[in-house]
Amino acid sequence: MFESAEIGHAIDKEVYDAEVPALREALLEAQFELREKAAFPVIVLINGIEGAGKGETVKLLNEWMDPRLIEVRTFDQQTDEELARPPAWRYWRMLPAKGRMGVFFGNWYSQMLQGRVHGEFKDARLDQAINAAERLEKMLCDEGALIFKFWFHLSKKQMKARLKSLQDDPLHSWRISPLDWQQSKTYDKFVKYGERVLRRTSRDYAPWHVIEGVDPHYRSLTVGRILLEGLQNALNRPAAKPATVNAAPLPVSVDQISLLDSLDMTQHLEKDDYEEQLITEQARLAGLLRDKRMRKHALVAVFEGNDAAGKGGAIRRLAAALDPRQYSIVPIAAPTEEERAQPYLWRFWRHIPARGKFTVFDRSWYGRVLVERVEGFCSPGDWLRAYGEINDFEEQLDDARVIVVKFWLAIDKQTQLERFQAREEIPFKRFKITEDDWRNRDKWDAYRAAVGDMVDRTSTEVAAWTLVEANDKRWARVKVLRTINRALESAFEKSDKHDKKHGK
Amino acid sequence: MFESAEIGHAIDKEVYDAEVPALREALLEAQFELREKAAFPVIVLINGIEGAGKGETVKLLNEWMDPRLIEVRTFDQQTDEELARPPAWRYWRMLPAKGRMGVFFGNWYSQMLQGRVHGEFKDARLDQAINAAERLEKMLCDEGALIFKFWFHLSKKQMKARLKSLQDDPLHSWRISPLDWQQSKTYDKFVKYGERVLRRTSRDYAPWHVIEGVDPHYRSLTVGRILLEGLQNALNRPAAKPATVNAAPLPVSVDQISLLDSLDMTQHLEKDDYEEQLITEQARLAGLLRDKRMRKHALVAVFEGNDAAGKGGAIRRLAAALDPRQYSIVPIAAPTEEERAQPYLWRFWRHIPARGKFTVFDRSWYGRVLVERVEGFCSPGDWLRAYGEINDFEEQLDDARVIVVKFWLAIDKQTQLERFQAREEIPFKRFKITEDDWRNRDKWDAYRAAVGDMVDRTSTEVAAWTLVEANDKRWARVKVLRTINRALESAFEKSDKHDKKHGK
Repeated sequence: MFESAEIGHAIDKEVYDAEVPALREALLEAQFELREKAAFPVIVLINGIEGAGKGETVKLLNEWMDPRLIEVRTFDQQTDEELARPPAWRYWRMLPAKGRMGVFFGNWYSQMLQGRVHGEFKDARLDQAINAAERLEKMLCDEGALIFKFWFHLSKKQMKARLKSLQDDPLHSWRISPLDWQQSKTYDKFVKYGERVLRRTSRDYAPWHVIEGVDPHYRSLTVGRILLEGLQNALNRPAAKPATVNAAPLPVSVDQISLLDSLDMTQHLEKDDYEEQLITEQARLAGLLRDKRMRKHALVAVFEGNDAAGKGGAIRRLAAALDPRQYSIVPIAAPTEEERAQPYLWRFWRHIPARGKFTVFDRSWYGRVLVERVEGFCSPGDWLRAYGEINDFEEQLDDARVIVVKFWLAIDKQTQLERFQAREEIPFKRFKITEDDWRNRDKWDAYRAAVGDMVDRTSTEVAAWTLVEANDKRWARVKVLRTINRALESAFEKSDKHDKKHGK
Repeated sequence: MFESAEIGHAIDKEVYDAEVPALREALLEAQFELREKAAFPVIVLINGIEGAGKGETVKLLNEWMDPRLIEVRTFDQQTDEELARPPAWRYWRMLPAKGRMGVFFGNWYSQMLQGRVHGEFKDARLDQAINAAERLEKMLCDEGALIFKFWFHLSKKQMKARLKSLQDDPLHSWRISPLDWQQSKTYDKFVKYGERVLRRTSRDYAPWHVIEGVDPHYRSLTVGRILLEGLQNALNRPAAKPATVNAAPLPVSVDQISLLDSLDMTQHLEKDDYEEQLITEQARLAGLLRDKRMRKHALVAVFEGNDAAGKGGAIRRLAAALDPRQYSIVPIAAPTEEERAQPYLWRFWRHIPARGKFTVFDRSWYGRVLVERVEGFCSPGDWLRAYGEINDFEEQLDDARVIVVKFWLAIDKQTQLERFQAREEIPFKRFKITEDDWRNRDKWDAYRAAVGDMVDRTSTEVAAWTLVEANDKRWARVKVLRTINRALESAFEKSDKHDKKHGK
């Protein structure tokens, strides 16, 4: 994989000087066009051998292009805010917006390579990390991002010579960190695992470019040309992606019966039972969130449901149990301008709670496969791939001990009608009913099909859906609370076992 | 100040139960109207004696109102990201957007009171903190925010009884933190300094409400009514603030000569001198930013100037000197939707660099007194008060050892014309010239007057303006670099002296 980057590529100064002006001009032009169209973000990943010119090349790109449109991000030590959340959170928060270019030093690849080289984990974990990187990049590309992955390479001999010459040069010796010297010892391992990583993550949508780092002219021109060509191609591709869906369409149940039909919509609670059970479950929840094991977890509750199914009421009964300092509620409406300039999961990542905290999403990322699907706000290709992306997302939460609980509050069509009419009559509830609600009601069957598919495809072991019979509000509220309590208890037990096994 | 909150206010359960339903309904209605209009944010500050019902009241508000529109924020331990920035940064990042309500526990008042009570500083520093709080709140209110400040009070006797009863109640004993018990010892001090703080910060635009905390019915009803009345008043006030400007208009120089006229616009550098000096200053800058004293500082450079004055080129010469991992460039264009939902300084606060880092603002908060003034995007009242607000802002940066360097790049009208024409002819520079640029040119004199006022009113000891003669780009670029270098050197020397004095 690295052979052709060890053969001593070099470019004459004359050739270089003659080529650079036109290249710069074209890069600038592409960059401004990117800004004007603001059609996609550009992500540049910088990896490879220390001393192979990574820093110099990034510096040069900032000189060649307009640095005002480039964000260079380093990911060294995690901050405590980052440590309290899933590992990918730090990358999500730094993603460049559409029309801009983000250069990521010390990205997910450096993290996995460091870990493996220094023996923090074995190949199996490395492969998991590789897999996660692949999925992340695939998703970013599907959302329109243009990703460049550069591996700056040096042979072992070249690297040693390079470090030596840097060290001897007083103007440059500051550039050599202890890490660099360390790498001269771990070179073989680094290259071995680097090969494994590159081999598995070089994909058509985001290939690796291995750059021989010895000759500055060669590596600068090469990187510049790759960037230029990639930018120009992406800028000239047709605006609307053809809605190519390779898979067969979603299976339609032959008997037209879905999981929703299996719900017993007559479930209900008498007032006395309700009040007793509600108080019991609220006290239980309050206790569980104060449990010291909660400090190792976070809790995410997702509320979806038919309009007027009682999401707000259920959320309020939940909130009533808790210290308001411990939870936050994120109501999801139309995305803001900054959110629209990012992949659709970005607006949810930004609200992922820190350890010990609880976030309620009042509507959620499932909008992608519900309202966006039904209303045609995104293409079939987009919502079809969203099931997998969402499962990946929730798996990352689960890996970081974020407990995910998801509710679909279901009411029947007649109950909805009655509630809509009642809302229109009560002054302070008028805000809760809009034209949109009536319009959505006309699409009852389409939404029902979307819900069925959603549950079938995203109710997983790590984040199961709970269907809530919500014709009776009391029943629904108690079921929601009880489900959260059970999820917390079972997560705590799992942690206990895990910690015991690992002697903590 | 607290006397009338120690007289044993109480409300019967019957009265309470009779009043609450209407109050809740009205609060909900006000809250939804707030969301619909999204005209202003609501900030609720919660302070006072431990055990006086602060937590309970916030919990109740979340039950009475729609918790999805309320954000409860606690400010305990600062995170490392917060510690690396000016103290106010953590509050700015948590401000509620227009249409929403933010409840701040542990806000700026708790911080100053804790510090004073535990003897971390004396009255003089407390007074500085009081002053800063006053300015912050004044600015927020001028920007439209509605601020409620609640002080929950208990007499010493009441407090001791309350803590005792909480402790005896197994369901509640977890609520008492070590801090609470500590407060029973520091009660007298806490109340004494609390009085000082309340006395000085109770203003017409953001008065304190002292609430006797003994009787839950009394305190809940009182808080609820104050909130309701305040919300309703604010929702019903006329949308457009009358542009009342109390001060005399800005003085116009009798001889029509401003600081800009005193610039020698013929300043220039020969190519050889330029290249030598540029390299020297770039190397100096690179060295200074690597200096270990930089770890205690951050650097902010502001670039303003006539269109086509060469801001971009100067910024690129700056960037060329540096490791791209150390700086970031923030180009300021029209604010995004999320930025428009916040006070105008919010979008700059979010980019304030952490210690050790360098941020370049390509255009800045001075837009308020330049383009917004000249184009009439804000009222005279708004931009007139901005001078003081900006000085406060920069003083906070300076206090946190953020070095602020500000450049006005000045060219004359003829030079601008030539550059506009040249830009229209060069393909990759066409992006840089728009209709707007030609329109702005027509307002040359108005901009010139605005620049004069800006420099007169915001060139301060903590953040001076540097006027740059930019007809000659070489001269301008070297002057910019040299000015930044001098600012860094002088800041480092000041730190050295300060540290030596304090034996560090």
